[in-house]
Order: sequence, then C-alpha cells, then structure tokens
Amino acid sequence: MTYSTEKKMQSDDSEPPAKRSHTDFQSAQLAAYKGSDLELKCINTIRVLAADMVEKANSGHPGAPMGCAPMAHVLWSSLASGGVGRAHSASNPEWWNRDRFVLSNGHACALQYIMLHLSGYEDCSMEQLKLFRQVGSHTPGHPENFCTKGVEVCTGPLGQGISNAVGLAIAAKHLGATYNTPDFPNIISNKTYVICGDGCLQEGVSGEACSLAGHLGLGDLIVLYDDNKITIDGSTDLAFTEDVNKRFEAYGWHVQTVNDVANGLGDLRQAIEAAKKVTDKPSLIKIRTEIGYGSPSKQGSASSHGAPLGSSEVVAVKSRLYGMDPDKSFHVPDDVAAYYKQQAAEAEEMRVTWDAVYLKYKHALPDKAAELERRFKHELPEGVFDNLPTFIFGKDKANATRKFSEACLNAVAPKLPELMGGSADLTGSNCCQIKGSPDFQKDTPEGTTIRFGVREHAMAAICNGMFAYGAFRPFCATFLQFAGYALGAMRLSALSKFGVIYIMTHDSIGLGEDGPTHQPVEMLESLRAMPNMNVFRAADANEMAAAYQIALLSVHTPTVICCTRANVSPLENSSRVNAMKGAYTVVEAEGDGTPDLVLVATGSEVWRCVDAAKALQSDHSIRTRVVSMPCQELFLQQDEEYRKSVLPGNIPTLSVEASSEHGWHRFAHAQIGLTRFGMSGPLEQLYMKFGFGAENVASKGKDLVDFYKQRGVDVPDLNARPTFVNFQGNDH
Amino acid sequence: MTYSTEKKMQSDDSEPPAKRSHTDFQSAQLAAYKGSDLELKCINTIRVLAADMVEKANSGHPGAPMGCAPMAHVLWSSLASGGVGRAHSASNPEWWNRDRFVLSNGHACALQYIMLHLSGYEDCSMEQLKLFRQVGSHTPGHPENFCTKGVEVCTGPLGQGISNAVGLAIAAKHLGATYNTPDFPNIISNKTYVICGDGCLQEGVSGEACSLAGHLGLGDLIVLYDDNKITIDGSTDLAFTEDVNKRFEAYGWHVQTVNDVANGLGDLRQAIEAAKKVTDKPSLIKIRTEIGYGSPSKQGSASSHGAPLGSSEVVAVKSRLYGMDPDKSFHVPDDVAAYYKQQAAEAEEMRVTWDAVYLKYKHALPDKAAELERRFKHELPEGVFDNLPTFIFGKDKANATRKFSEACLNAVAPKLPELMGGSADLTGSNCCQIKGSPDFQKDTPEGTTIRFGVREHAMAAICNGMFAYGAFRPFCATFLQFAGYALGAMRLSALSKFGVIYIMTHDSIGLGEDGPTHQPVEMLESLRAMPNMNVFRAADANEMAAAYQIALLSVHTPTVICCTRANVSPLENSSRVNAMKGAYTVVEAEGDGTPDLVLVATGSEVWRCVDAAKALQSDHSIRTRVVSMPCQELFLQQDEEYRKSVLPGNIPTLSVEASSEHGWHRFAHAQIGLTRFGMSGPLEQLYMKFGFGAENVASKGKDLVDFYKQRGVDVPDLNARPTFVNFQGNDH
Repeated sequence: MTYSTEKKMQSDDSEPPAKRSHTDFQSAQLAAYKGSDLELKCINTIRVLAADMVEKANSGHPGAPMGCAPMAHVLWSSLASGGVGRAHSASNPEWWNRDRFVLSNGHACALQYIMLHLSGYEDCSMEQLKLFRQVGSHTPGHPENFCTKGVEVCTGPLGQGISNAVGLAIAAKHLGATYNTPDFPNIISNKTYVICGDGCLQEGVSGEACSLAGHLGLGDLIVLYDDNKITIDGSTDLAFTEDVNKRFEAYGWHVQTVNDVANGLGDLRQAIEAAKKVTDKPSLIKIRTEIGYGSPSKQGSASSHGAPLGSSEVVAVKSRLYGMDPDKSFHVPDDVAAYYKQQAAEAEEMRVTWDAVYLKYKHALPDKAAELERRFKHELPEGVFDNLPTFIFGKDKANATRKFSEACLNAVAPKLPELMGGSADLTGSNCCQIKGSPDFQKDTPEGTTIRFGVREHAMAAICNGMFAYGAFRPFCATFLQFAGYALGAMRLSALSKFGVIYIMTHDSIGLGEDGPTHQPVEMLESLRAMPNMNVFRAADANEMAAAYQIALLSVHTPTVICCTRANVSPLENSSRVNAMKGAYTVVEAEGDGTPDLVLVATGSEVWRCVDAAKALQSDHSIRTRVVSMPCQELFLQQDEEYRKSVLPGNIPTLSVEASSEHGWHRFAHAQIGLTRFGMSGPLEQLYMKFGFGAENVASKGKDLVDFYKQRGVDVPDLNARPTFVNFQGNDH
Repeated sequence: MTYSTEKKMQSDDSEPPAKRSHTDFQSAQLAAYKGSDLELKCINTIRVLAADMVEKANSGHPGAPMGCAPMAHVLWSSLASGGVGRAHSASNPEWWNRDRFVLSNGHACALQYIMLHLSGYEDCSMEQLKLFRQVGSHTPGHPENFCTKGVEVCTGPLGQGISNAVGLAIAAKHLGATYNTPDFPNIISNKTYVICGDGCLQEGVSGEACSLAGHLGLGDLIVLYDDNKITIDGSTDLAFTEDVNKRFEAYGWHVQTVNDVANGLGDLRQAIEAAKKVTDKPSLIKIRTEIGYGSPSKQGSASSHGAPLGSSEVVAVKSRLYGMDPDKSFHVPDDVAAYYKQQAAEAEEMRVTWDAVYLKYKHALPDKAAELERRFKHELPEGVFDNLPTFIFGKDKANATRKFSEACLNAVAPKLPELMGGSADLTGSNCCQIKGSPDFQKDTPEGTTIRFGVREHAMAAICNGMFAYGAFRPFCATFLQFAGYALGAMRLSALSKFGVIYIMTHDSIGLGEDGPTHQPVEMLESLRAMPNMNVFRAADANEMAAAYQIALLSVHTPTVICCTRANVSPLENSSRVNAMKGAYTVVEAEGDGTPDLVLVATGSEVWRCVDAAKALQSDHSIRTRVVSMPCQELFLQQDEEYRKSVLPGNIPTLSVEASSEHGWHRFAHAQIGLTRFGMSGPLEQLYMKFGFGAENVASKGKDLVDFYKQRGVDVPDLNARPTFVNFQGNDH
C-alpha cells in the first residue's frame, strides 16, 4: 500500500488519519518512503524529539518541526549522504566560512536545537533540550544568537530571518569578492540556507528584502519554503492565496517546487542541487509539507501549530512513526545518533581542510589575513578616530549636523573597510555616501555602498544579517521619522547585540515643509525607551564626532545618530570627550556659585538655549547654565558625582527638545516639548510657533525660576530619588 | 515631425532636450500629441502650476506632478470627455458615494491641490496654491486629510496611500453588500483610484496590502502606477529591477501596461475602461512616464524630484509647453478653467442624481438609511455601553484581560455594525473574534471579520483606509510587541485623527516562554510618547470595559487596548467610571490621613501591588495606597485637584510596570521596571526574576520610604512643577 500525502489532504472521503490504526500508518509510511529506512528513522527521530520538547516545556510549536524535519535532515547531511553538505563546525561554531543557516520560522526552533544536538553542538545537550523554553536555558522559545552557539540570528518575529539571510548573503558575497584571490578562491565562499514558512512570506519586510536579493543576484542564498498551507488562524486559503512562486520569479529568483518531502527526499535533493548550480540568482524551493506530520489527530491542522500535542497524542505519534519507541522520551536511537555524528564529522572535515588553506593564505597574504582577523574580532584599527574633525567655537562655520555626520563618516571610513551600508533611497539627503565607495551591485560585489531602495524595514534587517555574519559594521540611513517603518528590525539589533549604526537625519519638526508625516515627534522617545540602544542627537560638529566614536566603540549596542537639517555652529564648551559623557555643561552661568536655572537641551535646540541664557542674564540677571545632553543612555552610565555636577536636580531645570517631552520629566522640572504633531512650513516659523525660539525659552525659563521663588515653593530635588536595580543583568 | 518620449529616453545619440530650442520642443509636442489641443493645454496647465507652486514655496516636488499630469487629467475628466468619470462633489466633498482618490506618492501633492482647485474645491483656491507648504495653509507639503477637503488620507510616508486604498475598497465593498438592495444597487458603489510611484511599490506595506487585495478580489480598486524609472537616488536600476507587473499578477491582480501617456491618452483610457470591466480583481495599470516632463534640463532626471526647478527653468518649461505663457505665473487659461469647470459640473450631477435616489431609498428603507446616516456621522447608538460587563471584587473569577477584552468586544458589537476588523493571524490568541461574525471574503463581502494574514503593517494601514471611508470603526489585533511592525501606520491613525481600535495582547514579559523577541518592553512607552494616541492597559475586567467605552467615544483618537495573557481578578475599587479617569485609587491606605507610600501600577502588576500593600501594612505598618493607572493620557486630562488627590506627589511614590521605566519618572520617585529585554520562561518565574513579585514590590516600597525618612531627605514634590503650554493647538 502506498500512502500519498497529497491524496490524503485533497480527498475528503478517505479515512481520516485519526481513525486509522497506528500500525497501518507506520506500514504505509514505510512502504511509501522512497529512501533508506535509516533515513526515515532519522527524520522521525527529529519529529518525536520536537514533540517531546514541546510536551515537557508545556508550551511551544510542535507542528512546524514535525513537518520540516525532512528539510532539516537534508541540510544537516553531508553530500555523500545525499544532503547539501553544509560546511559547519560543532567544535568551532563561529568558523568564518561556515554555511549559514537561518530558521526564519523561528517558532520551529525545537528543530534547530535538535539538529544542533544531533550534530554535537555543546549548547544543545540533551539536558538543554529538556530545558526547552525555561529561564536561563540555551534553548529559549525562539532562537537567540547570543544564547545558543550555532544560532546566527534572533528569529521569531516573522519575516526577519529571511531578511537577515539576505544580509548574510550580501556579506559573504562582498567579503569573498574582497578577500578571495585567484589562488585562494574559497576563503570566503559559504552559502546561506533558510527555512521559512507562510508567515515569513506574508510579511512586507521579506518582500522588500527578497526583491533586493533578486536585484543583487545573490546566488548563494537558498530558501526552503515550508508550504504547509496552514497558518495560526487555519488554512492559508483564509488570507494568503497569491502565487508565491510567480512573485519570486518576478523578483528575479530561481524558483522550484517539490511536491512531496514526507515520502522521500529525491526531489528535494535534486532541487537543491539545481539551486546550487544557479549562481546568479537566489533560489526559492517551495516544498509541500504537512504540519504536525505523524500526529493522528492534528497532522495537517492549525491545532498542531502552537501548543503541545498532549501526552497521549505524543505516544500515538511515536507508535505511528517508523523506528520510534512509544515508551521512550528524549531518545535518540543509536543508529540515528551514529548517522548524524558521521555527518557532523564530515562537516568538521571541511573546516579542517579550510584551516589548512587559510594557513597558506595567511602566509601568502599576511595583510589581507590580518585585516580579516581584525574584522572578525571587531577590533578597530589603530588611530581610527585620529581624523575625526575638531571644530572650534567662534571660528568654524555653521552647518547641518547631517553634513558633519558625512564628514565624520568619511573621516573614519578609509581605515574601516567593514563600514558597509547606505540609505533607503535618500543618499543625498542623509549625507551618508562614503566618498569613492562604489555601489555593491550584482556585478560589482566589491563595492561597499548598498542601494537599499525605498525599503527601510529590510534595510535594518539586512544590516542585522551583515553584522551577524561577522567582519562588518553595517550602517544605514533614512529620515528619523521612518525609523518607525524599521522598528521591528531595529529592536532586533538591540536585542541581538548587533552594533548596527543608524544614521537618521531630519531629526525634528525642523525638517520643515514636508510636514507632520515626515517630522519625528515620538521617535526619539521610542528609541530611548528601547534597551541596549544608544540614541545620540548631536548639537554640533564635535558632538557628532563623539557620536561616531561611541557608535564604533559600541560593538554590541546599536547607535542611532540623529542629525539635523538645520545649521548649527560649534558650541563654546563642546568637545568629543565631553559629549561622550552623554551630557555636559556647554555654557556655565556667569559668576560663581550655583546657577539660578539650568537649561538642558539636545541637537539644534542647544544653541537656542545658549541665546536664551544670554538674554536671561542680561535682561533678568538670571544666572543660567546650559547643558547639552546628546545621549541620555551614556549620561545615565556616568557616576552620580558627575551626573549631579551637570544636573544638580535642586536647581530649577527646563528641558528643551523639539520632540515629545514624555521622558524629560526625569531630568527637568518643566519642559518645552511637543504634545502634538508638527506642521508643514519653513523650519524657523515652526520653531517659533511651537515655542523653541530663544525668546520663548528665556521667557519660560524666567517663569520657572519665578514659579519657585515667588510662590515660596521648594524646588523638588530630582536627584533625591533612589535607583532600584532589580535583576537587570544581561544573561540571556 | 513626431516626437517620441520612448525614443528620446532610449537613444543616446539624439540631441539632448536642453539644447533643443523651446519652440522646437513645443512644435514637436503638439505634432506628436494624439488628442485635442485643449486637452494638451489642460495637462500643460497642471504641469506649470506645479512648477509655479514649488518655485514659490521654494521647496517641494515638481517632477512627479509634471509626469503624472496626464493621469490626473483623465481621473478628473468626465466620461463624456474621455475621462474615468469619477463621481465626486466639490460642493459636498464628503458625499458618501464619491469615487475615492488617493495620491499614494504624496510628495506629488501639488498635483492633487491643482486638480481640487480646477474642480472648484473651496480649500484649494488659487490663494491656497500660492501658500503651498506654508504654516496654516490648506496646501501642506504632503496631503493631510484633516487639512484639505477632498483629501482622503495623509500620504507621503511611502506605501501607506495604496494600502489605505485597499481599506477604502474593502469598506466600499462591505458597505455596498450590506446596504444596497436589488432596487437600490448603487447607494454605495464607488470606485477607489490610486496614483502611486516606484517608492510606494518598494515598501513592504504595499506588498502586504496588495497581496490581500488580490486575495479579496477588490475589483473596484484601480491603481495607476507612475513608472518613471526614477527614484531619489537616481535610476530605478540602482535597486528596483523586479518585474512589477508579474508580481501583481502573482497577487491575483488584473495588470496592464501603457507605454506612453505624454503624447496621447488613448491607451490609458482604454486601459482604465478595461480595468473598470474587471470586477473580480483589483487592477494595476503601469504607465510609462517621464518625471519633470517639460523641463529642458531636468526632465527624466532625479534632479526634478525634490527641489524647485529654478526660476529660469520654470520660464523655459512654460516656453516649451504648448499653450503656456512664460510671462505668467499661477495662471489658468480661460478655456482650461472652463473645461475643468464643466467636468466638475458633470461630476456634481452624479451627486445630485444620487441624492434623488437616496431620498427614495430613505423613504423605502428608513431603518437602513438611519443606520447609514448614524454610521457616517460616527454617532453611537443608544445604550451601546449597557451590556458592557461589570465585575465584582471578591466575587467574579480571575481571567486574562484579553478574555475580558473579548467579552467587551462582544458586548458592544451587536449594536455596532461599524465594528469591522480582525487579527494578523492571531485571532484565537488575540481573543478578537466577534461571535457570529462571518469572514469578509471575496464571495462574502457582507462579513465583518477580516483575515488580515500575517501582515501587521498593512492591517493598520487598511484600518486607516476603512476609517477614512467613513461609517466604520475598524479594529485590529496582534501581539503588543508587533505593534513595532505597524508603527508607521499606527502613527498615521493618530496624525489623521482616525479612531482605529488596536487590540494588543500579550502586553508584557508575562507573555512568557515565547521569549524576548515577542515580549514588549519599550512598546508601551513608544505609544505613550505618540501624540493623540490613547494607550490603555487594563488591570481587570472593569478597566477593560472602560477601555472599550473610551475607545468608542474617542472617534478621532486611536486607542491601543493592551491585554494580558495572565489572569487577573477584579480589583476592590475598580469601576468603569474610575478607570475612565485614567488613574484612581484602587486600595486606600488603612486609617485616616495621608498614606506613607503610594504604589502606582498598570495591568497585571496592580494586584501584585495590592498584595505588597497588605504586606507593607502588616509587616512594617507602612500605610500604602495603591493606584491603578490604566491610561496616562486620560489621567493627564483630569483637573489638577483630581490628579493630586490620586497622586499627591509629595508622598514617596513607587511605580511598578513590567516594561520600560522610561516615562514613569514623571509620576513616581522610584521605579520597578525594565531596562533590559525579557527572557524565555514561564510567566511567574520571569515576574519573580525581574522583581515584579509582591515581595520585591513591598521590599522596594519600604526602601523608598526609608530612603527619605532615615536619611532625612525631603520628599521632592513631583507636582511642584509648572506645566508650560506653548502652542499645542491642533490646527493643522
């Protein structure tokens, strides 16, 4: 008897699987399976381990691992065993030239942990598989790169993984073009494999990334699409009936279909072979699977997606699947263990061979090798900050900080080939072109300027992938407001500890005539509220230099460099050193003793405060200190003494930022900020209208001083507060 | 001599346009133009007005209006004149059955204002065209629905407009299916027209929306794609070489190509005719244009995109384009004015005819008509809140607030046919199914449950479009963390004053095992920092009822209803009335007089504070008030007396929220919050680990009291601060 997956799914009158006996199912599976019994047993082992893990965790996603097990088996098998022969190394998971694997449908992560376990990765011991989804384990509920060796990127938020993979493939292509030589053509020559599901392909970010991947002809990117026809809500017929293959062909991809992977791997192997041969296009292989394969009552149903199958169902799965023992849990049959051990050893052999070649490379091309090693270690070269410009108060000319950003970028770029990136089609406005840096295009992979197109979300996700590759400090740029399009991926930079550099220009209502759709109001606060994210809003050229230095030094913290369209002059007391403290006194109040008022501001508002302070002194004898606070995160990392020396807390303090005032209550007694959206109009008119002119700052500063003095109200000491540190350690 | 646009662009050896004399160009244009001279003059008038507007504003985007002028001409012309015969009404811009028009490439808005001007819309007088991009004008730098009658949605952030249009088309299809009858088949029968550019089609949000539009077979949606081969960075060859037509075919659209629109409108007219006849698929018409058409040195170049052409260039444009006078600015030739006046009159006639039919409809079907009128006025029916559940402290059972949300949704839904929406493929988890509400699908347009698929960004943008249509209160749902995918569109809900209801479940690290990729940390703060956005995090069932009442009453403010996965019991003093004040005392300290400590919390953390308060009283005689603050925005709208009665400010106050503490410094002296991302693990373990258990809250509460008492430090009065109201009025 042959058992056809296709037939079962399409025919309503066939006996439902739940009613068929387990033995029947097993016989049918075995009879139908076109391949070795051991191979089927391997695949079934993956399936039941996934069911076991989810069952023990009492939460998780068994369906996708059970459906995708055959693909994983092929990806983790050597060429000799009919697999793709992925180059990877359990003993050295960070080996440069490993073939990257991304599980874009991250909820299926039991699958990834199981494969890492079977391949001998230390982080995924059997003990860890049993700790699936528990606090502090190496096997969290979705893959986390910083938590599990062998995991490249955080996946789970749908669409990110496949977009990261585009970044991984860009990184490999560029690095290979840059460091390989005719004698050493394979120092960097890895492929990038992805498993993804319907969810990933519905998300816009993946559409953006895959369109760009097609444009760039990333031939070493191979995506296995788990076409299981099921989403959480039910059949894909509910919402996703587009022709995915045709869409990817439209993107310029090489596209194939495999109709059955449960009953044999021949078609899949052929498709992968073909995909590997197409080197000028990324490949999509649509593979028809059944979610929850093997589960008598949940196979092919959304009910197997996101919850444990139930203990009796797990037993039934084991009874039905060839080679499995219903009495055992977390069990790997010896022959299965031996099989994968052999596959891992063959993969390891590739690493050993590569090591030998690399030694010769290093001998022949010591400079290239040293640079590669430096890059992969994320070490900065000597003197990289030496050329950062210094601007002098009263001497150097005013300019927009986006122009200073361009100057700083170009000051560090010559020593940093790892700086690779570009803009979402706003290169000129974002001032983010590295001079003399050619485009990274299909036929010019050695270029370092990426034309992301109007694709902010994919841009950030691609930068995450490039960082994950190693050896890169990716940067990308758009208007600050459109960080809102990219936030899903920017957050993953922060979570994943990827020091991506975000150049975000037009950082306030000062953007002007383009109006409120383009003027950020809440964006600074959104980013400041995000853990592990430096938000740097420079007020002048020296502060901008600090932003670049901090960004480059912060290897595991992304930095958002916010830039004005408005011109600003160098500030009196600004310096790179001062700005790197996050906040400092730009202008001290006249005379001795404590000031009467502190104005604290960022970006282009600082010099307006400087003007206001002068007026307050001359018109009202209010002795006013002006503090520039380019980066709250850095300021909060300073010691208490320094913080109090800048912001005493018990002196009336007024914050001025042309943005949401939401978080400024922490630092200031009163705020000049925005509680509404901006308007379309010339910059200066908007600044006046919304109260950011020096005159209004002075007026409100006086009001604040009077509020306390005239009413006889004590100035509340904003520093007289304890800081509670609960568990905030950054263990995963 | 015939002049071919195609030829000029493709042939490098032809004389460049800049060198050809203006007279030659004009003769060539006239000779090549296949249509009436008047029509060409009309189109040229649009072109030069756009150039004039941008020139006078000294900023803006002349290129796209000049290239798209022929399309606009056809869209604003009557059937008799070879146009699409759009139904619209200058005298009544909000006429229900108007054919909607969305300029998705919003930077081309001069075009839209010009067409509104030529059609007699009051907001776009010639005076207003001269005030383009100025503060307070009706002609801002990008289209704003609340600023200009005749503008349906805010566009400019690329990809939004075309996604809004999908919402507009869904709204029309559903409303027609619901209110039309065999006798009255055209009460709601409008079409939705879109002009969009390359940028819109590169953005992921448009891919999501257009895939869904194809799935839903929205036959009344017709998109004109301005294929000008130019983006800001230069040629689309830099980053956008996919086959757009094929992609849209893959989505299930009807796709056509028009190769030349500058030299005649016959092909475009035929294509639109064909598109109108295809009623089961949305239509894309790719139209080859030249950006900056008519500009001698900038036509076909990115340099015409985003900056004024320059005064001499504008004169040259006028010299070159047939029928234009180089000595005149902001000039509409009499015959052109008369032409568009006639078109507008014919459109107006449709409205008059419809009015007469509607009168009959109203007479025949008074209930349906009354409901429609109520819906379009955004009035709530009598007693809509009567069935909102009330839960009693000590009696009713604990449950997750997402379950209470479901109960509230279902309590109001029977009286609110305008509640239409659904989830991004998390219907069960989001608990957002209206019982008995069938799916809105291609063949069941009367259904009110939308299956958005895994498309969060498009979901929000589509809801914006549905709200813009009128007669809808759209809702949508996902995990709170994935608001980060949708933020670009959620912000436009707030800016556009669209009272979309966002149901966001799994609102903290309490999401548990799915881990940090799915656990919101910064999202509450991101949304709170956004103007005109209610963020409601309910602590129990009564607060959830308040959330729904507030959301429905807030017609012009979107509301984010945050829901727990964790079970919570009714709180002692909770009520809908209390919660609608934004914050209130849930448990007062024992005895008389002021309390020793105030704990302020939201959501599932409130009952932990209640437990902590009991322990503080019993173990340390610290008399503790517990304040629940479900909605900061509403609390800040209360009068000072009430605010101080709840949060005195000069009593030690500790905030507790399992989220970023960023904004809590405003309300509390110390915070228990998160400054890091969460972890994968069971809810309760995470709450304990991160300090959100009652024991740690009590411990930190005591520490706070001791901090001031033992050190003899004054408690800083957080209310002793002035609030500065600068210009925050909400005029556009």
